[in-house]
This record gives sequence, C-alpha cells and structure tokens, in this order.
Amino acid sequence: MTSFVAEIARRVLAGQAPVVIGLDPRLDALPTAIAPGAPPAERIVEFYRQSLPAIAHNAPCVKPNVAFFEAFGPAGYHAYETVCALARENGLLVLGDIKRGDIGSTASAYAKGHFAIADAVTLHPYLGQDSVAPFLTHCGQPTADSAGGSSTGGKGVFVLVRTSNPGARDFQDLPIDGRALCDHVATAVTRWGSDLPMAEGYSPVGAVVGATWPEELARLRGLLPHAWLLLPGVGAQGGKVEDLAAAFDDRGLGALVNQSRGVMQCFEPNARDWLERIDAAAARFAADCRRVATGGQTANGSQSS
Amino acid sequence: MTSFVAEIARRVLAGQAPVVIGLDPRLDALPTAIAPGAPPAERIVEFYRQSLPAIAHNAPCVKPNVAFFEAFGPAGYHAYETVCALARENGLLVLGDIKRGDIGSTASAYAKGHFAIADAVTLHPYLGQDSVAPFLTHCGQPTADSAGGSSTGGKGVFVLVRTSNPGARDFQDLPIDGRALCDHVATAVTRWGSDLPMAEGYSPVGAVVGATWPEELARLRGLLPHAWLLLPGVGAQGGKVEDLAAAFDDRGLGALVNQSRGVMQCFEPNARDWLERIDAAAARFAADCRRVATGGQTANGSQSS
Repeated sequence: MTSFVAEIARRVLAGQAPVVIGLDPRLDALPTAIAPGAPPAERIVEFYRQSLPAIAHNAPCVKPNVAFFEAFGPAGYHAYETVCALARENGLLVLGDIKRGDIGSTASAYAKGHFAIADAVTLHPYLGQDSVAPFLTHCGQPTADSAGGSSTGGKGVFVLVRTSNPGARDFQDLPIDGRALCDHVATAVTRWGSDLPMAEGYSPVGAVVGATWPEELARLRGLLPHAWLLLPGVGAQGGKVEDLAAAFDDRGLGALVNQSRGVMQCFEPNARDWLERIDAAAARFAADCRRVATGGQTANGSQSS
Repeated sequence: MTSFVAEIARRVLAGQAPVVIGLDPRLDALPTAIAPGAPPAERIVEFYRQSLPAIAHNAPCVKPNVAFFEAFGPAGYHAYETVCALARENGLLVLGDIKRGDIGSTASAYAKGHFAIADAVTLHPYLGQDSVAPFLTHCGQPTADSAGGSSTGGKGVFVLVRTSNPGARDFQDLPIDGRALCDHVATAVTRWGSDLPMAEGYSPVGAVVGATWPEELARLRGLLPHAWLLLPGVGAQGGKVEDLAAAFDDRGLGALVNQSRGVMQCFEPNARDWLERIDAAAARFAADCRRVATGGQTANGSQSS
C-alpha cells in the first residue's frame, strides 16, 4: 500500500505523463452509439466503461467532477461511485473533484464518504483550518489494507488557491498586507501539509491553481514548495500547456495538468471513431505535458509523441 | 406559485417562527426503536418520516445537510432526495445545505440537480460572481408550474459570508482596505441580489452568518440590508438565541435561526418518548426565536411558549 502522493510521483518518474483527465459527463456530448434509449446514468457508466482503458493507457489519474453526476440525482450519484470503481479497476488513481468545505463535524462526514470512493479530493478554503483538518486525518501514513476501500491513510487533498474562472479575481485578488488573498491561502496550504508524510518532497496537501493565470504560476509555486499543483483550465477555458513549465521541478514532478472537454468531448456525438479520437487526444495531451514538464517544447498539439 | 423568499416572509408574518431545523442524520443518534436492523439509509428516512410532522408543526423550513447523507453513498444520496420530498409533503420549505461552489459550467450542473430537490441552497463565495450566477438564473420570477419540481424561478441562495466555526477567523477576518474579507463578501452578496425580485424588502440572495459571532452581527446586517440571514451555530456550537436580535427588522423578518443537534438529537437513543422530546425542543426553540425576533426576551430556554 502506498499513498496517493507517493504513487503519483512513482508513476510520473516511471514515464507516465503528469496529467489528469477530467470526467464531466454531459448527455449531449456522449457518443450516440452508447446504449441509446437507456437511462442517462446507465449511458454515462457505459461511456466510461468503454473509454477508461484508453485513458489509463495515457494518464495516471482521472478527475470525475461529482457535480455532473449529481445533476442526474441518486442514479447519477451511484454512477459516480461506479465510475470511480471502474477507474480503479483500470489502474487509474481517482481525484474526486468535490470542492467541499464545511464545519468540522460535517467535514468529517464528507471525508468518510468521499475517501471511501476516491484517492484524493478537492476542497474549499473559505472555512479555514478546522474545515480541512478532518480530511487531513486520512492523509497520514498509509495502512497495510490494500483492499482499495481503506480510508485510514494515504489519501490526498487539493485546496482551491487560485481558480481557473474569470470570477477568481473577485475575492482571490483582494490585497491583504500587500499580498493577494490567494497568496495567504497558499501559505496556509503549505502550513497544513507540513506535518504529513511527504513523498519525493511533496506533501499530501496539494493546491488548485488555474492554468488560465500563467503569470501567477511562478509566484504561487514559490509559496507552495511542497504541494502538488492541480492545474485546470487548459483547452476550453483558454489555458495553454506551454505556459505551465514553471509549475514543475527539474524531475518533472510537482504538477498535474487537467484536461476535461478537450479529451472526453473531442468528437461529434455521431462519430464512429470516437474512441480512437479520445485515445489520440489523450496521447497528444499527455505528450505535450510530459515535454513541458521535462523542459522541452510542445509541438503545438500537432504531434502525439 | 410563490418564491422562496416570499413564502418565508409570508409564513413568518403569519406567526411561524423564524427558524430552520437542520437535518444532519447520524446513525448513533437515531432512536434505537427506528427500523432496527434495516440498512442505514432506510433507518434515516424512517426517522424523518416519523419526526417531520412534529417539525412542520413548529418551523417553516428544514435544512438537510447533504454531507451527512452522502456519507452513506448512493443510498444516502437517495435518502437525501426522499427526505427533501417528505419535508415538502409536510408543507416545509427545503433549504439544501450543499455549500457548493465551482466554475460556471459546473455550477450550472449543480443548480439543475439541486434546485429540482430544494427550494434554496447554500453556496461558497471563493470562486466569485460567475460561480454563483448559474444559481441566480433560478431565482427570478417564479413560474406558474406548481408541480413542486420546477427549477425555472422562485428559488433562493444563501452565500457563506461569516461561518460559525473557529476557523472562520483564518481567512474571513483578513483585513482589506480596513475591512474584513467577509465584509467584502457581504457587499458582493448585496450586489448580486440587487437585480432579482424582492419580497417584503428581501432579495433571493441571502447570507450565512454564524450565530457564534454576535459582536459582528449588527455590522454585517448593515452591509446586507436586503439579505435573509441564515444563522447557524446555536446550541452545540455555542451560539445563543438571545444574542441575535440585531439580525431582525422591526417586523421580525430578515433572519432564520438554525438549530440541528439541539432539536433532532435532544434525546437518548433508547428514549421511548423521543418524538415528544423533539416536538418540545422544536417548540421551545421556535418560541425563543419568535420572541427575540419581535423584540422580546427569551425565557433562557426554560419555557416553550
């Protein structure tokens, strides 16, 4: 049994790309050939059942966003759990994009529920340290339990520091003693992770930093020396892989670039070759990120290796 | 069809107490007589099936916290939906304590899913205006659809401004131009609600302000002149009803005091009279809040009317 951060580091050092593929199911973006006429949640599960092997071929980790599953009610929530389990069966790590944040007693309930499903989760910072602490109790030394459902250690969290959306400016830029609010959150993230077991220099407390703000990346990287950075916002939101070099250390560790729509919705719904297209888009994205992480240049997305 | 804010105002003006009862199911706090041996989610639903009529007798609104349901996986999520439906069948308004906050496209998915279940929801502010906007599109003029599942208007939101937990100090107190971060969030909440249909002077965009910070209440009330304030933290967290008078206007409108554990977990699990105890605790809490809201004194919880 290894921890989330140890396993991510091991995989990237072994040559896997430092990427995460986002799973944001939308009915109107599913291949029309997938279980036509079946209930929405069944179609979603079947789509991922068929596509996750191609993802596992190109990426170490997936990031299902529970919002897109919850939109389908209890059946959708069940699909979320099923898709997380399918991802693990395919050897993928699961980063649950849940963006939770509540008072301590409630946070404990969330941590228990979500770490039974996922290896790591995303969290809101607004409620402060005691809203994050119940999750950190699951981030200690991993246990010997290798059944996959263990929730007693080895997990990871990614705290929202600088989000990828335009509204990030509304509060995260507000100046406090000459530094932006998000810088103060970054400093707190570093503190929260300081007592937990590290792997290759990185703690289980990571940070979300939008790939849409490349001019802020080096500064936040400096404030987060031991945090894996989750970088969303590439593709549909306008972020570019080639702008993200500052997020990586000289071993190519320290950051995971996320792409969702650009891989999982890269085809017309009626395309017969949708699976080949996902595989090719994931391979191209992986190659681009690997190259940037290790100090090379991207091929502007025109080559897949 | 009326809106959430119009209906809350109507009920309070008609004499109902300005309270919300929090539903945070915990297995170890259920009456042992409730469906012993049944699966957790079934026991939870049965508990509320039996207790919601007593709640509806004393309060206009319930606040189920989805975290405590999610902790039981898909069956728990289904129980959340069932409990929300049961509450509506009992004539209660449903404030879903979901504390969501995500980028625009994701927020749209959350809004669609959760407004099909609840009349109002709680939201995180950290991602700014465009993370809240997709919820506000459901807060316009209510539609003629009275089927209960309408999600095209008349809904409400409560944005986290000042939370009830100790960690609220970590970021919400940080000084920006001489004002705390939470004051800036309060000002934004006022702005976000300004274009939406008001009822009795209150907009559909409310704010969460912890009852554990009474010394901040008057200031935040002033910054939020058109917001219903949701005041959690009474009871187990240390907040006191008698400290909350500043939250109400001279008609007794403008705030909803929440109590969760103090009502729904006010008995020993093996107590035979657990339902009478819930009824009495809810009645006492309602009377205390009604008295404070209308300018009277509480009876220190020793009397129920």
